[in-house]
Amino acid sequence: MLDKKYLKAFKKIVGDDNVYDDKAHMIAYSYDATRTRYEPDAVIFPRDEDDVSKILAYCNEHAIVITPRGAGSGFTGGALPANGGIVLAMEKYMNKIIEIDLQNMLAIVQPGVINMDLQKHVEELGLFYPPDPASEQYSTLGGNVSENAGGMRAAKYGITKDYVMALRAVRPNGDIIRAGKRTIKDVAGYNVAGILIASEGTLAVITEITLKLLPKPQFAKSYMAVFPSVDNAMNAVFKSLAAGANPVAMEFIDSLAVKAIKEKLGVELPEDAGALLIGDVDGNVTEEVAFQIETLQNSFKENGCSAFLVAEDTKEREEIWYARRNVSQCVTVYGSKKLNEDISVPRSLLPEALKEIYKIGEKYGFSVPCFGHAGDGNIHVNVMVDGSDEKQLSDGHKAIEEIFQLVVDMGGTLSGEHGIGLSKAPFMDIAFSKEESQLFADIKKAFDPNNILNPGKMGL
Amino acid sequence: MLDKKYLKAFKKIVGDDNVYDDKAHMIAYSYDATRTRYEPDAVIFPRDEDDVSKILAYCNEHAIVITPRGAGSGFTGGALPANGGIVLAMEKYMNKIIEIDLQNMLAIVQPGVINMDLQKHVEELGLFYPPDPASEQYSTLGGNVSENAGGMRAAKYGITKDYVMALRAVRPNGDIIRAGKRTIKDVAGYNVAGILIASEGTLAVITEITLKLLPKPQFAKSYMAVFPSVDNAMNAVFKSLAAGANPVAMEFIDSLAVKAIKEKLGVELPEDAGALLIGDVDGNVTEEVAFQIETLQNSFKENGCSAFLVAEDTKEREEIWYARRNVSQCVTVYGSKKLNEDISVPRSLLPEALKEIYKIGEKYGFSVPCFGHAGDGNIHVNVMVDGSDEKQLSDGHKAIEEIFQLVVDMGGTLSGEHGIGLSKAPFMDIAFSKEESQLFADIKKAFDPNNILNPGKMGL
Repeated sequence: MLDKKYLKAFKKIVGDDNVYDDKAHMIAYSYDATRTRYEPDAVIFPRDEDDVSKILAYCNEHAIVITPRGAGSGFTGGALPANGGIVLAMEKYMNKIIEIDLQNMLAIVQPGVINMDLQKHVEELGLFYPPDPASEQYSTLGGNVSENAGGMRAAKYGITKDYVMALRAVRPNGDIIRAGKRTIKDVAGYNVAGILIASEGTLAVITEITLKLLPKPQFAKSYMAVFPSVDNAMNAVFKSLAAGANPVAMEFIDSLAVKAIKEKLGVELPEDAGALLIGDVDGNVTEEVAFQIETLQNSFKENGCSAFLVAEDTKEREEIWYARRNVSQCVTVYGSKKLNEDISVPRSLLPEALKEIYKIGEKYGFSVPCFGHAGDGNIHVNVMVDGSDEKQLSDGHKAIEEIFQLVVDMGGTLSGEHGIGLSKAPFMDIAFSKEESQLFADIKKAFDPNNILNPGKMGL
Repeated sequence: MLDKKYLKAFKKIVGDDNVYDDKAHMIAYSYDATRTRYEPDAVIFPRDEDDVSKILAYCNEHAIVITPRGAGSGFTGGALPANGGIVLAMEKYMNKIIEIDLQNMLAIVQPGVINMDLQKHVEELGLFYPPDPASEQYSTLGGNVSENAGGMRAAKYGITKDYVMALRAVRPNGDIIRAGKRTIKDVAGYNVAGILIASEGTLAVITEITLKLLPKPQFAKSYMAVFPSVDNAMNAVFKSLAAGANPVAMEFIDSLAVKAIKEKLGVELPEDAGALLIGDVDGNVTEEVAFQIETLQNSFKENGCSAFLVAEDTKEREEIWYARRNVSQCVTVYGSKKLNEDISVPRSLLPEALKEIYKIGEKYGFSVPCFGHAGDGNIHVNVMVDGSDEKQLSDGHKAIEEIFQLVVDMGGTLSGEHGIGLSKAPFMDIAFSKEESQLFADIKKAFDPNNILNPGKMGL
């Protein structure tokens, strides 16, 4: 419970209508995609950067903790007010596309803009914003930057950090800072934007984002390749890329997930479909698209591909993508609760990583269907358990821990795109040495000495 | 002068043969490309990361300042031991290409590897490392990372930071840290690699670099476009890019520089050649190369281009590039000393920026020939003065300061690729607010509380 005097002070800053502590608001701002709940003590809707600055300065002075929040669509609890205090909700007012600079091909947006709204807006202007997290329909760009969101197109086009040219942000003491410029190159001063990206709202509150845009590629096709086994498919992934293929997306679905799709969606696939690779290629000229398709097809065939389909028009492309887009809901045939992690390994180790992950599943008696962004080595591992069975839940978490250890031992990472937040905080010691953790703590302290910004996240 | 007991301690760490304090070494390690000189008290050649760790820990304990150094080819004094102490010279031992991982398309190198050595090595394997600073023949990758070096190919392929996947580094207290992974995606923990890039050796000593490689594009052509005026050429730059062109390089040479080239090199150019754009396009298929050439040509013609030449083979390409490669030495026809700055502005403001820069030159009576990386908005501004005339030198520096103010007012940056170092440190207040400078100081303190690493650089 926050003292009433604090609420009064907040109302003085942002107006009576933009501060709430009623039960309805507390519930509405208590959850995210992890389905874990923590109620805040109050929700504040800042109207602009100046509001953010004043609120932070006040909270810093009075040791009130703050959790910045976009759409609350994160998978690791980054937007959960785990220690109560204030939720700073950016989606109500700070949701404007401020400028599309056609001449310099960039967009300036507020953090509450929904990813897909920007994508649609710039595509109408012949431009292209590539980062497309699965949450693109509802996640905000502020959240995307804070978690360094990836997506399907990362194989060719990279992730959110590759598009952030500049940020404006507010430090916990209320200081407004600019980081980066509306220029392609800028090496003056520390790369503050670089450290704010993926910092999960623990260092500063982002108030404005300048994003690089690309010309929209003119031609594209989709492909689906069928492999007899996951091993074949995973070998095909890194070998085709090393052979010079540069697909926009290269998604995979493993044997268990393929089986679940057949069962749940009735999708017709070849008898021997043990694994699928699905993706897009694009280019400015049709010959580049043809080159990409040919490079993929040749390399896939050398690695046991039994069928290679190419979709020419929108309808065919949607059919090819149907399986991938719906796989997440299908795997529930293996268990009522999905313990879903987004580990990432060097691409050449995908075959071995999957073999070992299945072994861990077998040891505990769980099905572990996997799918995801094979083109960049980022796979979604789903340990399927009976959610009503305490023993299974506990074993499931043990399996996850073993998977994390395996991945780190292979030179991989706990998270390719979801972040650490609360859910993966207990595993930070697997991934980082005590010296590395100390450096994180030192960085946190430099930005936020009173630890008011999103405390408890990332193990900090 | 360092106390002899310190030298003894260093020799115990790295061996007698790797610590020097004789005059010859002090002179050899006193300079960089700024032609400013500061002698250190000793030069140490660490053999490996362990040596670096022990030396740093010792210096941290005894408050001995350290300047890490690669090739000493920087333009802003980043590698100069401005406060004496130790130069930590990485080029002698820590100069190995540790691994080329063909399957994951990445290189792991020590900081003392020369940029061009890596480029050549990976090109023989069909791969491609794009960042190509003008110093590529001698600058080291550790220096490239520390300054976030750019180059000609940045227009299409980006700069050093776009290729750094992971770093190993040593903090001033001797702690060895890893930042990033051998994976495309990694969002676990703070983006420490992101803040080490461009930190000019002030936060940690980089001991290992993992760099992303690309498949080598199969086809390329070079172009040269002649414009009647700088204004035409600068308009053509941003308009062609907004029209969808994606050239590898788009370099410009202004009227004064063109005149100097004609005079000094006797290069034949059309009578009305007021400004040139020179560059490369590439692709996996010839049609993509043709598409790029056509897009450029159409857009250039709409902006007054009077001649457009395309070079097909290596010999023709070298001819086209001859003017650009030699322009730097030609502009000395306008003055014995060149005050050379590498400002960067949003590309659409290039025409206006150049107009204003020439006005500043006129005001002081100096020729200011400009050339550089127009495709990314990064231009090399050369205020030409008589180096033996104190008044001219002093006025020249005033002109530079006015140019910096102009650029910052236009949303640009003091440095597109050379860094701040010592030379631009006096101008940090033009570019950054006191809150931003405070944040830089806080970051510095978090990494290096005793201020032993490269003190005085970046105004810190």
